[in-house]
Amino acid sequence: MYEDLAVFSGTANPDLAREICEYLGCPLRGADVFKFANDNTFVRLQKSVRGQHAFIVQPTCAPVNDNLMELLIMIDALRRDSAADITAVVTYYGYSRTDKKDQPRVPITARLVADMITVAGATRFMTMDLHADQIQGFFTIPVDDITAFHMLSGYFLQKGVEDAVVVAPDVGATKLGRDFAEALRVPLAIIEKRRERREGKKTEVLSLIGEIKGKNAIIFDDEIDTAGTVRDATKFLKSKGARDVYACVTHALLSQPGPERINESGLTELVVTNTVPIAEDKREKMKDVKVTVLSVAPLLGEVIRRIYLGISVGEMFNE
Amino acid sequence: MYEDLAVFSGTANPDLAREICEYLGCPLRGADVFKFANDNTFVRLQKSVRGQHAFIVQPTCAPVNDNLMELLIMIDALRRDSAADITAVVTYYGYSRTDKKDQPRVPITARLVADMITVAGATRFMTMDLHADQIQGFFTIPVDDITAFHMLSGYFLQKGVEDAVVVAPDVGATKLGRDFAEALRVPLAIIEKRRERREGKKTEVLSLIGEIKGKNAIIFDDEIDTAGTVRDATKFLKSKGARDVYACVTHALLSQPGPERINESGLTELVVTNTVPIAEDKREKMKDVKVTVLSVAPLLGEVIRRIYLGISVGEMFNE
Amino acid sequence: MYEDLAVFSGTANPDLAREICEYLGCPLRGADVFKFANDNTFVRLQKSVRGQHAFIVQPTCAPVNDNLMELLIMIDALRRDSAADITAVVTYYGYSRTDKKDQPRVPITARLVADMITVAGATRFMTMDLHADQIQGFFTIPVDDITAFHMLSGYFLQKGVEDAVVVAPDVGATKLGRDFAEALRVPLAIIEKRRERREGKKTEVLSLIGEIKGKNAIIFDDEIDTAGTVRDATKFLKSKGARDVYACVTHALLSQPGPERINESGLTELVVTNTVPIAEDKREKMKDVKVTVLSVAPLLGEVIRRIYLGISVGEMFNE
Amino acid sequence: MYEDLAVFSGTANPDLAREICEYLGCPLRGADVFKFANDNTFVRLQKSVRGQHAFIVQPTCAPVNDNLMELLIMIDALRRDSAADITAVVTYYGYSRTDKKDQPRVPITARLVADMITVAGATRFMTMDLHADQIQGFFTIPVDDITAFHMLSGYFLQKGVEDAVVVAPDVGATKLGRDFAEALRVPLAIIEKRRERREGKKTEVLSLIGEIKGKNAIIFDDEIDTAGTVRDATKFLKSKGARDVYACVTHALLSQPGPERINESGLTELVVTNTVPIAEDKREKMKDVKVTVLSVAPLLGEVIRRIYLGISVGEMFNE
Amino acid sequence: MYEDLAVFSGTANPDLAREICEYLGCPLRGADVFKFANDNTFVRLQKSVRGQHAFIVQPTCAPVNDNLMELLIMIDALRRDSAADITAVVTYYGYSRTDKKDQPRVPITARLVADMITVAGATRFMTMDLHADQIQGFFTIPVDDITAFHMLSGYFLQKGVEDAVVVAPDVGATKLGRDFAEALRVPLAIIEKRRERREGKKTEVLSLIGEIKGKNAIIFDDEIDTAGTVRDATKFLKSKGARDVYACVTHALLSQPGPERINESGLTELVVTNTVPIAEDKREKMKDVKVTVLSVAPLLGEVIRRIYLGISVGEMFNE
Amino acid sequence: MYEDLAVFSGTANPDLAREICEYLGCPLRGADVFKFANDNTFVRLQKSVRGQHAFIVQPTCAPVNDNLMELLIMIDALRRDSAADITAVVTYYGYSRTDKKDQPRVPITARLVADMITVAGATRFMTMDLHADQIQGFFTIPVDDITAFHMLSGYFLQKGVEDAVVVAPDVGATKLGRDFAEALRVPLAIIEKRRERREGKKTEVLSLIGEIKGKNAIIFDDEIDTAGTVRDATKFLKSKGARDVYACVTHALLSQPGPERINESGLTELVVTNTVPIAEDKREKMKDVKVTVLSVAPLLGEVIRRIYLGISVGEMFNE
Repeated sequence: MYEDLAVFSGTANPDLAREICEYLGCPLRGADVFKFANDNTFVRLQKSVRGQHAFIVQPTCAPVNDNLMELLIMIDALRRDSAADITAVVTYYGYSRTDKKDQPRVPITARLVADMITVAGATRFMTMDLHADQIQGFFTIPVDDITAFHMLSGYFLQKGVEDAVVVAPDVGATKLGRDFAEALRVPLAIIEKRRERREGKKTEVLSLIGEIKGKNAIIFDDEIDTAGTVRDATKFLKSKGARDVYACVTHALLSQPGPERINESGLTELVVTNTVPIAEDKREKMKDVKVTVLSVAPLLGEVIRRIYLGISVGEMFNE
Repeated sequence: MYEDLAVFSGTANPDLAREICEYLGCPLRGADVFKFANDNTFVRLQKSVRGQHAFIVQPTCAPVNDNLMELLIMIDALRRDSAADITAVVTYYGYSRTDKKDQPRVPITARLVADMITVAGATRFMTMDLHADQIQGFFTIPVDDITAFHMLSGYFLQKGVEDAVVVAPDVGATKLGRDFAEALRVPLAIIEKRRERREGKKTEVLSLIGEIKGKNAIIFDDEIDTAGTVRDATKFLKSKGARDVYACVTHALLSQPGPERINESGLTELVVTNTVPIAEDKREKMKDVKVTVLSVAPLLGEVIRRIYLGISVGEMFNE
Repeated sequence: MYEDLAVFSGTANPDLAREICEYLGCPLRGADVFKFANDNTFVRLQKSVRGQHAFIVQPTCAPVNDNLMELLIMIDALRRDSAADITAVVTYYGYSRTDKKDQPRVPITARLVADMITVAGATRFMTMDLHADQIQGFFTIPVDDITAFHMLSGYFLQKGVEDAVVVAPDVGATKLGRDFAEALRVPLAIIEKRRERREGKKTEVLSLIGEIKGKNAIIFDDEIDTAGTVRDATKFLKSKGARDVYACVTHALLSQPGPERINESGLTELVVTNTVPIAEDKREKMKDVKVTVLSVAPLLGEVIRRIYLGISVGEMFNE
Repeated sequence: MYEDLAVFSGTANPDLAREICEYLGCPLRGADVFKFANDNTFVRLQKSVRGQHAFIVQPTCAPVNDNLMELLIMIDALRRDSAADITAVVTYYGYSRTDKKDQPRVPITARLVADMITVAGATRFMTMDLHADQIQGFFTIPVDDITAFHMLSGYFLQKGVEDAVVVAPDVGATKLGRDFAEALRVPLAIIEKRRERREGKKTEVLSLIGEIKGKNAIIFDDEIDTAGTVRDATKFLKSKGARDVYACVTHALLSQPGPERINESGLTELVVTNTVPIAEDKREKMKDVKVTVLSVAPLLGEVIRRIYLGISVGEMFNE
Repeated sequence: MYEDLAVFSGTANPDLAREICEYLGCPLRGADVFKFANDNTFVRLQKSVRGQHAFIVQPTCAPVNDNLMELLIMIDALRRDSAADITAVVTYYGYSRTDKKDQPRVPITARLVADMITVAGATRFMTMDLHADQIQGFFTIPVDDITAFHMLSGYFLQKGVEDAVVVAPDVGATKLGRDFAEALRVPLAIIEKRRERREGKKTEVLSLIGEIKGKNAIIFDDEIDTAGTVRDATKFLKSKGARDVYACVTHALLSQPGPERINESGLTELVVTNTVPIAEDKREKMKDVKVTVLSVAPLLGEVIRRIYLGISVGEMFNE
Repeated sequence: MYEDLAVFSGTANPDLAREICEYLGCPLRGADVFKFANDNTFVRLQKSVRGQHAFIVQPTCAPVNDNLMELLIMIDALRRDSAADITAVVTYYGYSRTDKKDQPRVPITARLVADMITVAGATRFMTMDLHADQIQGFFTIPVDDITAFHMLSGYFLQKGVEDAVVVAPDVGATKLGRDFAEALRVPLAIIEKRRERREGKKTEVLSLIGEIKGKNAIIFDDEIDTAGTVRDATKFLKSKGARDVYACVTHALLSQPGPERINESGLTELVVTNTVPIAEDKREKMKDVKVTVLSVAPLLGEVIRRIYLGISVGEMFNE
C-alpha cells in the first residue's frame, strides 16, 4: 500500500521512527549512518529511493551539530539518489532559541539552519511545537508544525486535577499558558522574573501575578532543558501556598543538571512527549518524580499518512 | 561630507524623511513617484545614483500595497541605476502580524514581503520595533531593527507618573510590558482575554492578572490600530479602580474607527512616535485626548550616519 | 473528473473565473480574500489543496497593487499548503508598459513583477495578449500567452465590414495592425504621432500613412486605457474621409476619463473582451456607443483543461 | 589614473577594444584566449585583477557560440581571480531575435543567454541598440543599452540629403523609423510585407504605405544580416520612383550572402558602425557600394570612463 | 508503454540516440535543430512534451561550443513547453579537463558548464566516465555517471590476452589502470613523464615504473584525444621489450592529428565506445590499425528505462 | 595600517590564528564562541565589523561537525553585522574525501559543505592542499587553495637526504608523489594495494612498482589520518630493503590510533604542518619518532595581506 513511502531515521531518535513505522504499517528503511575514524559523518542508503517519497525522522537535540549534519547528509544522499520528494521530520528543532538578534553582533542560527536544510535539498519540513511560530517563516518550502497541545491537554482533562491553575513559568510563556488554561477551563497565573540591582549586585527576583494559594499548579511550557526554571517555579509556587505542582512540556531535553533538579524539585508529576529520547540514565536520576511520557508516534504517523495520500493535515486539528 | 549618501522618500511619510535629512544635514534626493491613469505606480530618479549609498524611507502603512509597491519599484530603479547599496528604511513593517501559520491554509505574508524586498535588490533592511523579533530572520540581508523603547521609557521616567503600573493589554504583550515595567521600576499587570461559550454564544471575557486598584496605569504595546483593545482595556482598568490611564506605543496606525475610540476611551494621554504619519483629520477626531508624538528622526538619522560611516550601530543601544 | 483541479479567484474578476469553471464543469474553489482594518490583504483557503493543481484567475488591472498583492499572497498560501503546482492566470498583465528603460533612472517593473510572482512560488504563468511578447522572457517558469486575436478577427470576418481598412492608431501598433489586416485580407493604414516644436511649444501632430478616404476603419490595438488615442484617431480618421470607425482591442481598461471619451468619440462600435471586468457605471457612461464584449472564458477554460490533462496547448492555435 | 580599470578583449572584435583603450588612455589587458586541439576554449589572464574593475569587450556575432563561450569563460576566470566587478560589454547581442515564443515549442534563447552571463558572474551588462528594448529586462544586473542613434542621425544631418524620406523596411521597424524621421525632420514611409496565397502558393507581397516618388530614401533599421530585406526594399523603392536609396543600421552582420546582395542592390551608400567587425573579404565583395563605418569606440570609451568614475551615463543622452 | 518518455537528440551523435531508442522500443522524438544564416542555433520541437519525461542525448564533443549551446537551447525549449522533467544525457562531457585551477587566473569551465545546464532547466544529468569523479559534485541535480568499465574489461577478459600487463600511460591514470588490472587480474605498470631541464632546454622524459619486457601491454585511460600520449607510450613500451600493445578508452575524441598518429603508432588494436561519433574520414585515416567500437546504447537504454520506471540504476553495477 | 582587517578564530586552531596575526602585526579580534547547556553553539562578536574585511581561521578537523557549525554561525553573525566581505580560512577541509559518488546512494558531502558555507554568507574561501583540486569547483565564490608543497620540498632539499626515492603510498597519491619527486629530482616508486580473493577470503596485497632497495624513502601524501597506510608502507618498504623511511604530509589529523601506529612504525621522521593542531597527548604517544611541525602561519599571513591589499596571490607561487 505504501510502496513509494520511504521512512528513514538518523541516530537521534530511532525508537520514535520505529514507532511511527509501526503506526503506518511499513518497514523502516535501512541506512548506514556512522562516523569514520576522522570524525566525518557518512551515510549510505541500503536501497534505491528513485521516485519515492522520503521522510527522515531526526530531531536536532544533543549532540546537536552531529544530529544536524546527519540530517543534512541524508537529505543530500536522498536527493542525489533521485527521491521524488524529501520531508525532514525534525521533531525537535535545535537552535530554535537563537531566532532573533536580541543583542548586537549575534547570529540568527535558526534561520541559518533553515537555509541549510533547504540548500541540502529538502522539499518539505515537519516539526513539532516550535519555540516561536515565526520560525515557520524561515522556510519557503511547506512547513507542517504539528502540536502536541491537544494530546497534553487531553491528558490533564482525563486525569481531572481539582482546583487547578495553569502557571506560565515566565512571561515569555504567558500566551502558551493562557491557551492551556482556556483548554482546561481553569485560571492562569504568571511568574515574573525581573533583574534587580540590590546592594550593588544584580539579582533575579520572582513575583507571582495571579492567585495560587491552596490550588494545584500545572506549569506549562514548550520545553524543559536544565530545569532551573521549573525547579525554581515549583519551590516558589509551594512557598506561595500551592498544593501539588505538575509540569507539562512537549520537549524533554533535560540537559545536565536537569534530571537531578527535577528529582529535587518537589514536582508531583512531569508530563512530556518522546520528541527527543530520554536516556535511561536520565530517567534513573529522576526516579523520585513520576515521569509520564506520551508518544507522538501515532500523531506523526497519521500526518505522514495524510501527506503521502494527499489528504488535508489541517483538518486533524481544526474541527 | 555626505556626497555619496542618497536619501530618498516614497509618498508614505515624506515629513519623516525630511526630518532625517535635516538631522544629517544633507538634501532629500528628488524622485518623481506617481501613478499613471491606469493605476500603475511609476518612479523616476531625478539624478544618477551610480556608486552611491541609497536609503529609502518608506513605512508600509496604509495604503499598504501601494506603499509597498512604491518601495519595491524604487529599489528596482536604484539597482538598475547602479547604486552601490540600497537600504530600505521601512519604519513600520506592514503585514508583520501575518508572520506565522496559526491556522491551516493561510500565507506567511511577512516572509513573502521580505523575499520581495530582497528580490527587488535591497542590500540592507532597516525597520523599527518589529511586531515579532523573529521577522529579522525572514531576511538574509543585514537587518537593523531600531527600537524606540528607550525614547518612550525615557519620556515616562522624565514625566514621573506616581503609583504607576505597566499594563500588558493582552497576554501577547506580556514580555514587552515586563521590560517596560522593569525600565520604569514599577509593577506589571496583565489583561487576559479568554474566549468563553456562554449560553451557546462565544464571548470574550476580560480578567485582570495583578493589582491595579488606586494606581495609574500605563498600557504598553508595539502598535495601536483600530484601538478596540486599548479602549476596552482603559474602561476595564477604570472599572477595576485604576486612576489615570496612559497608553504608549511605537506605531500609531489608528485605522478607522481608531481615532474615535481613542477619543471616547477615557485615556489621559496617548504617547506615540512618527514612524507612520498621523493625518490631520485623525488628530482632529482625537482632540479630547492629549496625544504626544515623539520624533524618531534623530534616532534614525544617527543610525544612517553610522551605517554610512561604517560605525557600530549596536553601541548606541548597548551601554 | 477534475478532482485534483483547483481553480481559485481573487477579487479582480470573479465573473470570469466563474465562467471558466462553468466551461470546465468544476466548482470554483472557496477562498476568503479580504482586507483587515489595517489595510493588510489576507487570504484563507477554505479547503486543503495538498497535491492538487491550482489555478488562480486574477488580472492585475486597477486597483493594480491590491490585485497584485492578492495574487502573490494566494500563491504563498497555496505553496505553503503543498499544492502540487500553481498557475497564475493573469488575464491582463499590469505594469506591462514599464517593460524597458526608455529613459535613464527608471525601473523595469514588468520584470520586477515577474520575479515577485516567481519568488512567491508560482510554477507556471498564463496570460493574454501581452503588450510586448518579450515579457514572456521575463519569466523562467513556463508561460502560456493566450491570444484573443482569432476570436476578434473571427468576429469581424463574420460581421463582414465592407471596404474595410485596419488602422494602427500609432506606429507602435503597426505590427499588430498588419497581422489583423492580413487576417481580414484588407489594407493597412497607420497614424503617425510626431512631437513637433511650433512657435516654441511642443505639440503632437498626427499624420496618416496610407489611404482611408471612403473606407470603413477598424482601429486595432492590444488595450484601450484612457481612450485618448482612440478618440483622437477616430476624429482624425473621420476628418480624412473615413466612413464608419470601429475599435477592437483585447483589454478594455477604460481608466478615467476613458468611458466618456469613448462616448463622444464618434465610434460606431467598440469590440473588446472580458479579460478585465467593465464596471456597470463605465458601461453607463458609454451608452451612446455600441460596446460588444466577447468572453475569453471558453478559450481559457480549454487551455486549463489541456494543461491539466497534459495535452498540447499550442495545437489550439497552430493549425 | 585608471589603475583599477582592466579592459579585456575576447577574439570577437579586438580592434574595437583597442580603440576604446586608446580613447581611455589605458592599456588593453593581456589574456591568452585560444582553443585546445579538442576544441575546448581556454582563457588565462596574464596579470591579477584582484579588486579591479573589469570590462570585457566581446560582441556575440559569428561564430556566435564560440564568442559567447569565450565571454562566459573570461567572466568565470575574472570572478575566480576576485575582480571587484565585471562588466560584459557585448556590443552586439547575438540571439536577440529569439526573444519570445512567437510559435509553440521554441526557446527564448535571448533570456537563456542573459541567465548564462549572470550565472557566470557578470555584475553589469553593457550593450548597444538591442533588437528589442525589453531584453534589458531579461537581466536583473544593471544594463546600459547604449545607442548609436544620435551618431547615425548626426551623420545624415551633417550630410544633408535633400527631399529625404525615412523608410522602415518592414512594419517591425516602424517605431525606429519614426524616431529617425523625427530626428531628421523628414517624412516616414513603411514597406509592408504580407504573406498571400496566390494560385495555391504562398508568396510574400510588398506594398508601400506612404509617399516615396521623387524622394531620396533612407532605410533605417537596427541591423543588416543577409541583406535580403534591404536589397528587396531598395529595388522596390526604386520601382516606386525613389531617387537615391541609403541604408543605415547599427549592426553590420552581413552574413552570407549579404555582401553580394549589398553590392547588387543599387544602394547609394551603406552607413554602419563597428559594433561587429567587417572582415576584409566582405568589404571586397561590396566594393561597388560606398560603405561608411562610424566608430562607436569614443562613445563606449566615454561610458566606461563614467561607469569607472561613478558619473551618470544617462546624462550623455538625456539633454 | 513508454508514452510519457520523450527521447531527443541534438546533432552531436544522432546515431547513438537512434540506437538507444531501438533498445527502448520507442521512437526518437522530432526536433528541428539548425543554424540561421546569422549563425544562431535554433530549436523547434515537433510535438508537445507537456508533462512528459524528456531525455536529450548530446555529447559535448567537437564542435564543443555548438553542441553545448544546442543542448542548452533544447533544454530551454523543453522547459518552456512544460516538460515534467528533463535529463541531459551528455555521453561525453566537454571541458571536463578544465575542472580545477592548477595555475592562477584560469577558469573552472567544467563547473561553469554545470551551472549553465542547471540554469537552463535540466532536472537530472547523465554522463559517462567523467574525467574526474568529482565533477559529479559540480551539480546539485542528481547525476548518473555511467561507466563503460565493465563492458571494456569484459571485452578483454573474453578476448583472453596472454601475459598481459595493464599500463597507465601517465601517472594521472594510475588509479584507473590499477582498477583495470585488478579486473583482468594482471600486473600494472606506469609510464612517468617528467619535465627535465637538459642543456638549458626543458624536455619531457619518459620512464617506466614496473615490468613490461616480453609482455602484452594494454594501455588504459578515459579518453584518447590527439593520441600523442598513446603513440609515444606504444613506442616507448615496444622499446622496453613489450610484444603487442593494445589501447582501450571510453571516449574516442581523436582530434587532429589523432587518427594519423594512431595509424603510425604500432598499436595492435584500439578498443573504444561510441559515446562520441567517429567520422568516416577518421576511420579511413586509421585503417592500418584494428579499431573496435563497442556500443554503449544498450547500457544507456537500460539506464533510461530504469529511470523512467523508477527502478534502481545502482544495482546494475553493484552486484 | 590594517584598520579594516578583522581576523577571527573559532575554537579549532586558535594558536595558528594568533601566529597569523603576529605575522600581520594586527590583533586577533575577540569573539565569544561557546556552547549552551543544550549543546547549541553560540557566537557573539565583541566589536562591530561594519564595513570591514573579515577572515575566520577555522579548520574543520575533529570535532568536525562542531567546528563546521562554529564556522557557519560565525559567518552568519559577520554577515548580519554588515561585514564588507567574509573569507573563510579553512586550513583543513573536512569531508574532502566524500567528494564523489564512487558507490550508489551516498552523498557528496564536500559539495554540501561548500553550499553551506556559501549560503551562510561567505564571500571568499581559502584553504590548503585540498584532497582533490576539483573541490575548488564546488564553490562559485573565489577560492584560494594555498599549497605547503614548496615549504615541504624546501625542507627536504635543505636537509639533503641521500639516495632518496619518493614513494606514493597508494596509487591515488601517484601524481602528488611524481611532483614531489620532480621537485627533489629523485626517482618515484609506488605502492599498489590490490584486493585479492585468496582461499575464499578477501585480503589486501601490497606490491611495489619501482625500485627501493638500499634507498632512503620519503613517503609523500596530503594527509595522515589513522596512519595505517603509512605504518604498513614503512614496514613494507623496509622489508623490500629500504634504509631510512621519512613521511611528509600537509595535514596531520592523526585520528586514533594514529599516534600509536606512528610510534611503532619504524619511521625516521614525520614532517607535517600546523594546519590542524596536534594535541599534547598525541605528541606524547609519538615520542619515539622525530616529529617536525612546519608552520603555515607566515604563508597564510602573506596571502591574507595580499588579499587585503588587492595584490596578486598567484605570483607568490608562480615564478
